[in-house]
Amino acid sequence: MGEFDLIARYFTRPARRAALGVGDDCALLAPAPGMQLAVSSDMLVEGRHFFAGTDPEALGHKALAVNLSDLAACGARPLAFTLALALPKVDEPWLAAFARGLLALADAHGCELVGGDTTAGPLNLCITVFGEVAQGDALKRSGARAGDDVWVSGAPGQARLALDALRSAWRLPEAVLATARARLERPTPRVALGLALRGVATSCIDVSDGLLGDLAHVLDASGVGATIEVTPTTALIAASACPTSAGALFDAETLPLTSTQLQGCVLAGGDDYELVFTAPPARRALVRAAGAASATRVTRIGRIEAQPGLRLTNAEGQPVPNDFAGFDHFA
Amino acid sequence: MGEFDLIARYFTRPARRAALGVGDDCALLAPAPGMQLAVSSDMLVEGRHFFAGTDPEALGHKALAVNLSDLAACGARPLAFTLALALPKVDEPWLAAFARGLLALADAHGCELVGGDTTAGPLNLCITVFGEVAQGDALKRSGARAGDDVWVSGAPGQARLALDALRSAWRLPEAVLATARARLERPTPRVALGLALRGVATSCIDVSDGLLGDLAHVLDASGVGATIEVTPTTALIAASACPTSAGALFDAETLPLTSTQLQGCVLAGGDDYELVFTAPPARRALVRAAGAASATRVTRIGRIEAQPGLRLTNAEGQPVPNDFAGFDHFA
Repeated sequence: MGEFDLIARYFTRPARRAALGVGDDCALLAPAPGMQLAVSSDMLVEGRHFFAGTDPEALGHKALAVNLSDLAACGARPLAFTLALALPKVDEPWLAAFARGLLALADAHGCELVGGDTTAGPLNLCITVFGEVAQGDALKRSGARAGDDVWVSGAPGQARLALDALRSAWRLPEAVLATARARLERPTPRVALGLALRGVATSCIDVSDGLLGDLAHVLDASGVGATIEVTPTTALIAASACPTSAGALFDAETLPLTSTQLQGCVLAGGDDYELVFTAPPARRALVRAAGAASATRVTRIGRIEAQPGLRLTNAEGQPVPNDFAGFDHFA
Repeated sequence: MGEFDLIARYFTRPARRAALGVGDDCALLAPAPGMQLAVSSDMLVEGRHFFAGTDPEALGHKALAVNLSDLAACGARPLAFTLALALPKVDEPWLAAFARGLLALADAHGCELVGGDTTAGPLNLCITVFGEVAQGDALKRSGARAGDDVWVSGAPGQARLALDALRSAWRLPEAVLATARARLERPTPRVALGLALRGVATSCIDVSDGLLGDLAHVLDASGVGATIEVTPTTALIAASACPTSAGALFDAETLPLTSTQLQGCVLAGGDDYELVFTAPPARRALVRAAGAASATRVTRIGRIEAQPGLRLTNAEGQPVPNDFAGFDHFA
């Protein structure tokens, strides 16, 4: 099967929101008057971002999800995306499953595939995503102010909990692994929360490299510092990794991890695609309403301060050493 | 050096045309009122699109050039691009040279790097480019009409002439190789010609996979056929591969290639990034004026016909068999 047949069979659909879609030299996009186009690119490499042999349907989902997460962090509404795909060989069942996972998530967000490229090569997926946001409404990294609360969505840490279990660093109870693995392989981009936070959050970023590492980018861009309480964040992962029928918090003590390992997953694990954002204390009710409107848990984990740097404390306000280096692709 | 240092050192410049550039979750682009955004993605893989060990400065040039060529084919003015880069290791001299070649071409076209991604992995470059074109002005593949002339820019075939020389399929005189190799490694995207052809050409495509193969996409999209005269196209390559001081045509007879090999380079070689376009005979003077305005040679090579299919003739109008299969990435 040639390249053009491949595109036609698996990736071509009638253009809807784009003026011109797959099959010309360029796609044509026309943002509505007064709207800006938010643009982000992410590349996923086999062996680096996913294991060889990963379920292609989950991979299709994740490749788009990590890009939608960037739109979420800007408060932009998904509009369209391009896909560039390097494949070692044409494997039709693999492609069909990949396209199914990719396009199901695209449809769920009204995000249209408008173009791209296919080539032979080591497995590599590069998606560029386009969203719309009204002039001045985009959430940026640079808006955090001293006195703001620091919030996080969902329950970060699960992706790393699963990843290291799959790498045999530890063994997890089956139910915990299943839940955590779903976060690793099919993360939920927090698009609805990002949209609900426009006009509420003062800054926002998505957690791809690790909560503390990504928060540090917000602090740098905003020229501020922060203190994060380690205890409530640690509880987050325990709460969601194994929800009980009674809805009670899972007892982290029963996981075969040290407290430091568990905190490491939460604070430096990465790959969760949750949002970390800031907002003044006067907007706590608005933040909770945004969480409720988007059916997304939001948890307050710390405070922005004028003093630069990132400090950790325990529940009693005592300093905790920050031994959690952010994941870095070239570290 | 970490990922963020790498981006800061080699790829970050102050945002100019973009509302928000490198360093946030998304870049923000705002096309002018009445303008559409033309979008295209191309992925370049080592060993597939360029040899291992290719001069990184030339590679930076080419990675952007092939994307600008897609904008040219749509008659769009370059605006911005994103770069996703997978690198086997952080090699600073390589990166500095790559960025130099990339950004020199970007500056020449006023095309701003607004975001992207870097990761470890087999060498892979994915660029998504954005251009502006007024609503209704974009050149498409679907506008060719029976009776239109078929035109080509520049001198297609040189890239393949050089490629196969580098692969030792044939030896070229040093001066011919140098000229042809420059077309292979540092192609000139025909952006100025594409802009000049708005309102003149009825359809347009860039030659990435081979003249006949890419023209076939125009014919398919337009629901027409064409007859191409082989002789003048063959002369094109000879004319430009080795310009003499007197400006006389190079004598193709002295190249160590058969006539069929030479025609194969021109008609099916690919990788030249010239434009193939159509226009009614009444606009021949306008097409020549567009060529002159953009300092780009334009040559009439055939005619669009109602009868579907692609036919080749010699200078006497006698049919020539079409043995020149288009290059296909998965063929």
